[in-house]
Amino acid sequence: MARHRVVIVGSGFGGLAAAQALEGADVDVTLIDRRNHHLFQPLLYQVATASLSTSEIAWPIRHILRKRGEVTTLLATVTVVDTDGKAVVLEDGTRVPYDSLILATGARHAYFGHDDWEKFAPGLKTLEDATTIRRKLLLAFEAAERESDPDRRRALLTFVIIGAGPTGVELAGAIIELARETLKGEFRSILPGEAQVVLIEGGQRVLANFKPDLSDYALKALRDLGVTVELGEAVSAVDDAGVVYGGKRLDAATVIWAAGVQASPAAKWLGVKPDRAGRVKVEADLTVPGHPDIFVVGDTATITMPDGKPVPGVGDGAKQGGKHAARVIRARLAGDTAGKPFRYKHAGDLATIGKRAAVIDFGWIQLKGWIAWWAWGLAHIYFLIDTKNRLAVALSWLWIYLSGQRSARLITQGDAEKAPVRESEKL
Amino acid sequence: MARHRVVIVGSGFGGLAAAQALEGADVDVTLIDRRNHHLFQPLLYQVATASLSTSEIAWPIRHILRKRGEVTTLLATVTVVDTDGKAVVLEDGTRVPYDSLILATGARHAYFGHDDWEKFAPGLKTLEDATTIRRKLLLAFEAAERESDPDRRRALLTFVIIGAGPTGVELAGAIIELARETLKGEFRSILPGEAQVVLIEGGQRVLANFKPDLSDYALKALRDLGVTVELGEAVSAVDDAGVVYGGKRLDAATVIWAAGVQASPAAKWLGVKPDRAGRVKVEADLTVPGHPDIFVVGDTATITMPDGKPVPGVGDGAKQGGKHAARVIRARLAGDTAGKPFRYKHAGDLATIGKRAAVIDFGWIQLKGWIAWWAWGLAHIYFLIDTKNRLAVALSWLWIYLSGQRSARLITQGDAEKAPVRESEKL
Repeated sequence: MARHRVVIVGSGFGGLAAAQALEGADVDVTLIDRRNHHLFQPLLYQVATASLSTSEIAWPIRHILRKRGEVTTLLATVTVVDTDGKAVVLEDGTRVPYDSLILATGARHAYFGHDDWEKFAPGLKTLEDATTIRRKLLLAFEAAERESDPDRRRALLTFVIIGAGPTGVELAGAIIELARETLKGEFRSILPGEAQVVLIEGGQRVLANFKPDLSDYALKALRDLGVTVELGEAVSAVDDAGVVYGGKRLDAATVIWAAGVQASPAAKWLGVKPDRAGRVKVEADLTVPGHPDIFVVGDTATITMPDGKPVPGVGDGAKQGGKHAARVIRARLAGDTAGKPFRYKHAGDLATIGKRAAVIDFGWIQLKGWIAWWAWGLAHIYFLIDTKNRLAVALSWLWIYLSGQRSARLITQGDAEKAPVRESEKL
Repeated sequence: MARHRVVIVGSGFGGLAAAQALEGADVDVTLIDRRNHHLFQPLLYQVATASLSTSEIAWPIRHILRKRGEVTTLLATVTVVDTDGKAVVLEDGTRVPYDSLILATGARHAYFGHDDWEKFAPGLKTLEDATTIRRKLLLAFEAAERESDPDRRRALLTFVIIGAGPTGVELAGAIIELARETLKGEFRSILPGEAQVVLIEGGQRVLANFKPDLSDYALKALRDLGVTVELGEAVSAVDDAGVVYGGKRLDAATVIWAAGVQASPAAKWLGVKPDRAGRVKVEADLTVPGHPDIFVVGDTATITMPDGKPVPGVGDGAKQGGKHAARVIRARLAGDTAGKPFRYKHAGDLATIGKRAAVIDFGWIQLKGWIAWWAWGLAHIYFLIDTKNRLAVALSWLWIYLSGQRSARLITQGDAEKAPVRESEKL
C-alpha cells in the first residue's frame, strides 16, 4: 500500500515544525512554499534597520530538510485546494495529491479597509519588505542631506510607525538609534540625530499584550531614547505627504505600518468563510469543520482555548500548532482517531527597546532593562537555525554593541518608480 | 579665499582612492555616487553564487569617509558636466561647482552591438546584478525539480558563461561547486550534480592576461572540476532558449555574460569622442585633452604606458589612477603645474578556480594550486574595508570550506516578469 501522503503548504514556523515533527512517521511529506527560504521573522526588523543582513535570518528550506529523504520541497504557488479530489493545485495546474493537508501560510499586514495606504506605509513580513523599508529609511537621510527647504527637510527626517505592538516598538527603537548613533557625524548639511521618530498607537498603551508595568517601562524607555509616542490616537489618513491623526497632519516622508495583519488566502482556497481577519475557524484539533483531513495552523487559523483566550499570532503559536497537527496525523496512522484537542501553552512575550533595554514577560517572571536585553539576545540566537548564523548574528550584534556601526546599510533593490540609481545604468 | 573644490564622481576603487589620497590637502571634496555603497567588485561573483551576502562586500561611502569633515558625500546621479561653467549637473538640476574634477565612474558590461542579449545573459557589475544572477541560478534548480520533460530539465540544469576572463572562470568554478557540493542531496527528482557548466571563450585560452602555463593550469583545474570549456568559439546568438556557438545550439535556461565591458558615459557628459569601448582618451597626467582641470581614471579612461601596454581595467589600475589625480592636484596647489605623467605599476593578477585552486601571477613569481588559493583568500580579506567584514567573510569562507554550505542561498528581489513569489502576495 502507498504511504500516507502529507502535504504542508507554508514553511514558516508552523509548516516547518509540522515537517520536523513528522520525522520517523510512516508518511511521505511534500512541503510547498512560494519562497525558497524559512524566515526568522522576529529579527526581520533588524534587517529593515540595517543591523542584520538578509542571509543571517533566512535559510533555504530544502537545506534544512535535506537529510529527510521522505520530504520533497517544492518552490511553487498554490492557487486552490481541491477538497473533493484531495489535491493541492499549483499555479501551473500541477496537482499535488494529499491524504492529510496542513495549511500554514501565515499572514500579511492588512490595512483594514485602507488598501490604498499600503503604497505609502509598507509593512514588514518578508525579506523584500525589510529591504524596501531599509531602502526608504536610508534614502530619506540621503535626500535630506541634499534638501535646502527646511520644511521638506524636516519631513524627510520624520519617521512614523503606526502600531505599538512588538514590531512597532522594536522598529521605533532601532530607527532612533540608527539616526542618533550609527549615522552620527556622517552628514554635512543635516544632523541625523535631529530625526524625529513618532510611534502612533490607537490603544492606551504600548505592547498591550504585556503586563501593564512592562508596558509602562517600555513607554518610558522609548521616550528616554527620544521616540515620540502618541497613545490613543487613530490614524485617519496616510498619503505621500505623511499621516493625519488626532485631527492634525504630520508631514513625514517615511511611514511604516505595524498595526495589523490579515491571514493568507487559505480560506479562499478551501471555499470556507473566514473571520474578519481572514482566518479559518478550526475545530479543537485544528482541522477544518467538515474536512478532518485538513489542518490549518498558525496565523492562518483562529481558535479559542478553554480559558477563553485566542491563540496569539506569534511564532510559538504556529510552532505548537504545526507540531499538534503532526501529532494528530501520527495518532490516526496508529489507529487513534479521537483527535486530541490543541492546547496552546504561552511561553512568554519578549520585545526590545533599542540595544540596551528589553521587556520579557514569561508569566511566572517578568524582566526588564539590560538583563532582559541579554536574555532576549541569547534566546534569539539560540532559536536561529544553524551554527553559522548563530556566529554571524552574534558577531553583528557584538559589533553594533561595541561600535554602534551597523553592517548592512545598503540601499539596493529599487522598485521601478523610485530608483534614480537604476535609470542611468543604461549607457 | 575659498578653498579649492574637488568634485569626484564615482566611489569605486578609483574615486575612493582619490578621496583618500586628498586627506590633509587644502581642498574641499564632494564625492558623488548614484549608489550609497562602495563595492568590493573582486568578490561580487561570490554573492552571485550564494557564498557571501551583499553586506559583506559593500560599505556605505559616507561611513568610510565620516571622519573627513571636509568631504561631503552625495547620493545623486550626474547628467552632464558643464565644462565652461565648471560645474557638475545633477538629475534634479543642482549644480555642483568644481575647481578640479575627477571622473571615476567605472564600466558596465557591454554586448558589442547585441544589446538585445542583455535580457537573456545578465552581466555582473553591481549588487543587483549579483542577486539577479543568484536568483536565476537557484530558480533554475527549483524549476528543474518540478520539470518532468527530460529535455527541458536538461536545459534548466545547463549553465552557460560567456567569456573566460577572471570573472567567467571564477563564476564557472563556483557554479559547478554549488551544484555538486552545496546542493547535493537536497533535491528528490534531480541530481544537482548532473548540472552542466559550459564556459565559452572566443580566444584560444582561459585567463588570457596570465602567463600561458597558468592559463593551462586553470583550464585543467576547470575541467577537473567538471566545467566544459569551449575555446576559440564565438557566440553568434543568445535568446530565451540558450546560445548558439560554433554553428550549434545549446539549450540553457541560464546564460551569464562575462565577455566585455563598456565605460560609463563620462565621455558623453564631457562631449568628447570616446574610444570603441566608450572610454575617454586622457593625457599622460590623466587629464582630458583641453581640460587640464578634469581627470578621468580607472575603467572610464584609456591610456597607454611608455612600454606600449594599456592600463588594464582592474581595480588596482583605478586605485593608482585615483591616487595619481590626487597627487597632481596637490602638486598644483603647491605651485607645481608640470603635471607628472601617470605610471601604472602592475602588481599582479589573481583568479580562483573553485575553492581549492587559484592562479597568481605577480610577474616575479607565479603560484598555482591550493597555496595560491590561500594567498588569494588572505589578500582579499586584507583588502576588505573593515574589521567586521574581514571577520564575517572569513567566517563565511571557513564555513563553506568545512561544510560545503553557502549561507546566502536566497531567492529574493524578483523582477516583475518572473516573480511567481510576488504575484500571489496580494490577498
